[in-house]
Amino acid sequence: MTQTPVPPVPPSPALTRTVLKACADLARFTETPGQITRTYLSEPTRDVHAYLTAWASRLGLRASVDAAGNLRVRREARTPDAPTLYLGSHLDTVPNAGAFDGVLGVVLGLALMEALGNATLPYAAEVVGFSEEEGVRFGVPYIGSRTLVGSAEPLLDLTDRSGVTVRGAMAAYGLSPDDLPAARASGNTLGYLELHIEQGPVLEAAGQRVGVVSAIAGQDRVTLDFWGQASHAGTTPMTQRHDALAAAAALVVETERLARATPGLVATVGVLEVHPGATNVVPGHVSCSLDVRHAENAQRGHALKHLLAAAQASAAERGVILNTHIRSQQDATPMDDRLKALLHRAAEDVGEAHAELVSGAGHDAVIVAQQMPVAMLFLRSPGGLSHHPDEAVLEEDVAAALRVGERFLHLLALEV
Amino acid sequence: MTQTPVPPVPPSPALTRTVLKACADLARFTETPGQITRTYLSEPTRDVHAYLTAWASRLGLRASVDAAGNLRVRREARTPDAPTLYLGSHLDTVPNAGAFDGVLGVVLGLALMEALGNATLPYAAEVVGFSEEEGVRFGVPYIGSRTLVGSAEPLLDLTDRSGVTVRGAMAAYGLSPDDLPAARASGNTLGYLELHIEQGPVLEAAGQRVGVVSAIAGQDRVTLDFWGQASHAGTTPMTQRHDALAAAAALVVETERLARATPGLVATVGVLEVHPGATNVVPGHVSCSLDVRHAENAQRGHALKHLLAAAQASAAERGVILNTHIRSQQDATPMDDRLKALLHRAAEDVGEAHAELVSGAGHDAVIVAQQMPVAMLFLRSPGGLSHHPDEAVLEEDVAAALRVGERFLHLLALEV
Repeated sequence: MTQTPVPPVPPSPALTRTVLKACADLARFTETPGQITRTYLSEPTRDVHAYLTAWASRLGLRASVDAAGNLRVRREARTPDAPTLYLGSHLDTVPNAGAFDGVLGVVLGLALMEALGNATLPYAAEVVGFSEEEGVRFGVPYIGSRTLVGSAEPLLDLTDRSGVTVRGAMAAYGLSPDDLPAARASGNTLGYLELHIEQGPVLEAAGQRVGVVSAIAGQDRVTLDFWGQASHAGTTPMTQRHDALAAAAALVVETERLARATPGLVATVGVLEVHPGATNVVPGHVSCSLDVRHAENAQRGHALKHLLAAAQASAAERGVILNTHIRSQQDATPMDDRLKALLHRAAEDVGEAHAELVSGAGHDAVIVAQQMPVAMLFLRSPGGLSHHPDEAVLEEDVAAALRVGERFLHLLALEV
Repeated sequence: MTQTPVPPVPPSPALTRTVLKACADLARFTETPGQITRTYLSEPTRDVHAYLTAWASRLGLRASVDAAGNLRVRREARTPDAPTLYLGSHLDTVPNAGAFDGVLGVVLGLALMEALGNATLPYAAEVVGFSEEEGVRFGVPYIGSRTLVGSAEPLLDLTDRSGVTVRGAMAAYGLSPDDLPAARASGNTLGYLELHIEQGPVLEAAGQRVGVVSAIAGQDRVTLDFWGQASHAGTTPMTQRHDALAAAAALVVETERLARATPGLVATVGVLEVHPGATNVVPGHVSCSLDVRHAENAQRGHALKHLLAAAQASAAERGVILNTHIRSQQDATPMDDRLKALLHRAAEDVGEAHAELVSGAGHDAVIVAQQMPVAMLFLRSPGGLSHHPDEAVLEEDVAAALRVGERFLHLLALEV
């Protein structure tokens, strides 16, 4: 509280260009030539780690790879018993990804270390490049961030499509599950700041470069199977049908109607498979997904209950049997009020608009929040596009995030 | 008109059993062991022809295979210039078929020849086992019946999945397209009687063994492509979505609603494919089919127009682009009034209930009607099941069809 912070200096345009160049450079490290695809502990991950380690070395910072393959770049505080602020995001990608989802947050973390220069702070800062957030290789996300909070062990025996276990993948990469406990975050933390592209159209529509995340929406994922009766599309009168697709379609329409009518709710049927799937056959079986998200758990629960009842009614009306399987339920993750307030103040100090928005997507912060306060700063996503090769970020938005981030680090120093 | 018909004798129970045994025997001739699959000019077709030819020989009738692979069994009239009545159905099957679709009609045709015994009639009778009705091998149905009416030539260069043309398939079977003109029906015909299982639940629901077909419904087949915008299911607010599945689902629901509300209309979305098809991605593209059938062309046209407009409105409301492709349009085929009246009288004479019903499925009769009067007699389908290994027919219904059929042949003799 009595420390005088280093006065904020606007990050140089050179640093913004460094960030964009780093993202472009890292995009070359891929499993699939011509695309950006980097799954958990794949070989190009080593190149990413080497690139970022070299950058850290130039800044005089020590980089290491922990037992789960997370890159950890540590900037010590002026005193050894000082608390730690974690910041960053993830380094793995979906198949055929863009260059910024996850990666940008790690690169911005290192760039903020570069912006800090020789300033001494009353807290340590640790940039984390989480090794696995997307869940592509083992079907379960967040292996990296689960390691930080000590909950990765139950995942060690999951297998990928080649039958390799998480344990085996670690060993092949030269890592040992025995070292997982040592990879846990220190008990003395200030929290975790994740910087990430929005992956949606809200900031663009609002004309904001950056936004402060209010909460990460909770999410239910359900699989619904409508079992009707396949029959001839020409010879089966409407009164004698048990059309599984008609039953499912009514749910799709009701899902859209409810979500449109409920502020903050997003609900989606993204998978819908029709069997047998022939022009002249009344569908006998439809399997579909339902994805329901809201920043408030009660609202989400209400919506899910309504939609499952609607599905049941739609099926029953048609003599169709409905089986539902709730695949996952994740409660909402509210951001820490104190860190959020600091982000707002930082944005205000540097003259950036900073209205809040809900994150509809999950992030490592969901997991890290189990152990420490978390906050997120979103950068505008042109066209709302993500998980796509055309995913982009504007130079002015990167500059804004650097300004807000650097100011945040200094404001935080005042409060330690 | 002055002829005295041979008095109707109820077909013997033995003949009914002969019919059922023949269907069971023919089911063994298949391309796929353990299933009944017999596509156009496949090798097992030779075994079917041999089996039925042997039966014809026992009856003293001459069997031949025409240029398109149709089996033709001819029973001459008492005079050489007498007209011909064609009767029968088809001998090919869908993959993994039942034992009765098509085959039963051919077998019943031969059994009726057996029932006629030595009776001389004032018309020739020709049982036709059409070689191809289902359209499985070349994607276009009715090659056999098109040959009877002289319209098969344009199909000769179609190719199957192996790149074999219709022409090549004929040559491989020992047939020549040069002989197609000789395979045409005589100009002097009484018409065509097709006996077929209903393939639907109407007769079963009505408690009738057989039914007189009033018309074969006309049919439109349309492919609709809804082009929206794939986006993240968590980060895309409802107001900014272009959900291709929601647009298509509204059409599915409206299709069912309209058909339920319109007597005699059946309308079906049997194919619906969602892209990219992931739980957490708003669907960007849906391709679906629409199948609309009605016995009256005006009603069918009205329904199609309404549904295409509904699809367009549903797409437009969501900022989704709709492309429609009308794949086929087949007008309704009314049955010949005179032949139909004879079927009714025959059924009445032998004490069978004989209310009319529309055929929602297409049949060779659709094609043959281009050249001669046609009529169809349906046999009840237990469970409405067809195109399925469990497809069945009841012994009492076969007996009823034989009684009605034999009486029909004699009544027709009175009118020639």
